[in-house]
Amino acid sequence: MTKTIQDSVALVAVDWGTSNLRLSLLDEAGQVLAERGSDRGMGSLDPSEFEGALLELIDQDLPTGKVTPVICCGMVGAAQGWKEATYQTVPCAPPDGKGATRVSAQDARISVWILPGLKQQSPADVMRGEETQIAGFLADNPDFDGVLCLPGTHTKWARISAGEVVSFQTYMTGEVFALLSKQSVLRHTVNGDEWDADEFASALADTMSRPQGVASKLFGLRAEALVAGMSASTGKARLSGYLVGLELAGARPYWLGMPVALIGAPALCKLYQAGLATQGCEATLHSVTEMTLNGLKAAYSDVKDMNT
Amino acid sequence: MTKTIQDSVALVAVDWGTSNLRLSLLDEAGQVLAERGSDRGMGSLDPSEFEGALLELIDQDLPTGKVTPVICCGMVGAAQGWKEATYQTVPCAPPDGKGATRVSAQDARISVWILPGLKQQSPADVMRGEETQIAGFLADNPDFDGVLCLPGTHTKWARISAGEVVSFQTYMTGEVFALLSKQSVLRHTVNGDEWDADEFASALADTMSRPQGVASKLFGLRAEALVAGMSASTGKARLSGYLVGLELAGARPYWLGMPVALIGAPALCKLYQAGLATQGCEATLHSVTEMTLNGLKAAYSDVKDMNT
Repeated sequence: MTKTIQDSVALVAVDWGTSNLRLSLLDEAGQVLAERGSDRGMGSLDPSEFEGALLELIDQDLPTGKVTPVICCGMVGAAQGWKEATYQTVPCAPPDGKGATRVSAQDARISVWILPGLKQQSPADVMRGEETQIAGFLADNPDFDGVLCLPGTHTKWARISAGEVVSFQTYMTGEVFALLSKQSVLRHTVNGDEWDADEFASALADTMSRPQGVASKLFGLRAEALVAGMSASTGKARLSGYLVGLELAGARPYWLGMPVALIGAPALCKLYQAGLATQGCEATLHSVTEMTLNGLKAAYSDVKDMNT
Repeated sequence: MTKTIQDSVALVAVDWGTSNLRLSLLDEAGQVLAERGSDRGMGSLDPSEFEGALLELIDQDLPTGKVTPVICCGMVGAAQGWKEATYQTVPCAPPDGKGATRVSAQDARISVWILPGLKQQSPADVMRGEETQIAGFLADNPDFDGVLCLPGTHTKWARISAGEVVSFQTYMTGEVFALLSKQSVLRHTVNGDEWDADEFASALADTMSRPQGVASKLFGLRAEALVAGMSASTGKARLSGYLVGLELAGARPYWLGMPVALIGAPALCKLYQAGLATQGCEATLHSVTEMTLNGLKAAYSDVKDMNT
């Protein structure tokens, strides 16, 4: 008889962000048995709805007569989430399972844990989710001394040394790009289908050499389309270049002269990699899915001990 | 018998923007007989609906047996407006009535004209509406040599010399502030009711001295609220300071060492005035309603001659 997921599952590893819920079912050896996901992110759920959103994806896979740990990271642990998880304060090692917050679930087949986020007192900053990717990266690269950049809606830059997150900084570049390209006067001007790497590089260089220019260059995209027929693909590349350029100019103290590793969606990471390359910084690329899973698995042994 | 508006009206002066329609009924001497307005801006109207939106406000006031000119400025003349009006290219005097575009109206009691906008080839830029405010300002101040700043959703800076608009530059500061404060992750953090002038000035100074820092300071507002309980009023003042600071840093070649006159909504103009004052620039304030009306009235004699 074929072994089912139900026979083998030892851990449910959950990346629960604002917009999406993604999880993996793992066996005791950490092998992935199945991957599931939905769009029931933290932002669309009341506290009472989280357990249902989780069970909807794994109900049929849970063994009975034992308790399977469910380890979550991300915005599920925000004040507006399932239950508020703690923050650990940098400088510190990225959180492991020991600081996890236990969530009371109705279903006796699961014990649910949310990993802590990280906070920084000054300048004030917070993260929920990326710390688990950092933990996953450090599990593979324990001696890394350099900077991690985690591009996304809110891109995080983290200085790593001696296994600790020394400091970090957040950029809203992804969210600002989305607002400008979908909801501003630029929406007809920056949504082309082609990618123009040269326009991106040139807009990025412009902004890095004169960051205060970005504020007038934004409307310039609309004007250039009206006055000179600039294409929406050129507009997209320039807008990306302006915004990523402003971020790289601001984050220069992080990446300048440091080894940089990028963790995030591949297309977005390649954009940052290209931007950094124009500044003589060669960054490596790493899978966000893999790093997140690594981080959740690393927390498993801690949680297992507490899982009584 | 009392004279009615219908007996005296000689001109309908219309400021028709993306969101609002505002008009004044004037007699032959340029005295205001009545002011009307609605929220039927260009953005919410199909080309076929403009005449109705206009008549809804003035139908009862139009004399019969003669043709009353209706002079419009603003986004009503955009490609998506009632009819596309021309642009005049800077350097040039702000448009008068001679370049106006005639719109064919169904109602025989009116002749409708839309004043030209201004465009600049390089760097590409465009305006529709502000050029009429500039014309109105120059009607009162024909010898002005300096810079006009017209704060709004899209703030315009215009270099004026010898009665001409030499060059201009547009900043999306107002629109970016609205997007960030209403639709971004900052929306819970920057909508306080109090105004903190010191926080505004300090955030503005920070950004002017290090413009590339603004990209990380945005998320810092959210983090500071979470980590240190920063109030939403402090958040609002800081966000304004960051964005206006980035604009003033970019527009420095415009205002530095120049006489500056501000034309716009009073509260917004006072913000710019305060920001400029921190840089040793004393700007004067002027009523946008008055300047617009002045500009539309100045176009009347041209249009009247064409009104056959």
